[in-house]
Amino acid sequence: MTAYVYVSLKKSVLDPQGKTIQGALKKMGYKGLESVRQGKYFELTLDGGLSREEAQAEVERIAREVLTNPVIEEFRFSFSLAE
Amino acid sequence: MTAYVYVSLKKSVLDPQGKTIQGALKKMGYKGLESVRQGKYFELTLDGGLSREEAQAEVERIAREVLTNPVIEEFRFSFSLAE
Repeated sequence: MTAYVYVSLKKSVLDPQGKTIQGALKKMGYKGLESVRQGKYFELTLDGGLSREEAQAEVERIAREVLTNPVIEEFRFSFSLAE
Repeated sequence: MTAYVYVSLKKSVLDPQGKTIQGALKKMGYKGLESVRQGKYFELTLDGGLSREEAQAEVERIAREVLTNPVIEEFRFSFSLAE
């Protein structure tokens, strides 16, 4: 089972890295962009020993306690059951 | 319209950053993890002037030409129509 965790800056936090990317893309001639924000993305492969509920609880705990800085970031996660 | 672009290392490329996170999580007592891989995640907000097809083509072009290093990385993207 694979879990995908997406960590992004909270909407209220400035994202200078995203702004830089946006500026560069605009200069390069790409059109239609209103804003760009960058985040992090983690792929966690879980071994088969956990049930769906345990896996969900464990991944949420890892995302909240380790992968995210709760002061400025928020996270969401999803599972792929294929395998 | 918002586009989400996920960039990750190709499966065949070693991910030392992910390995470090995995080792740290194991030491901290989190269970059931087989592997961790880290990637990047971009949220592109598009202005309303583009049709769905144009937006898709533009986002794919940006992802392929700018956001991804094709030698070691691959990307996928999705759209959220909610706004």
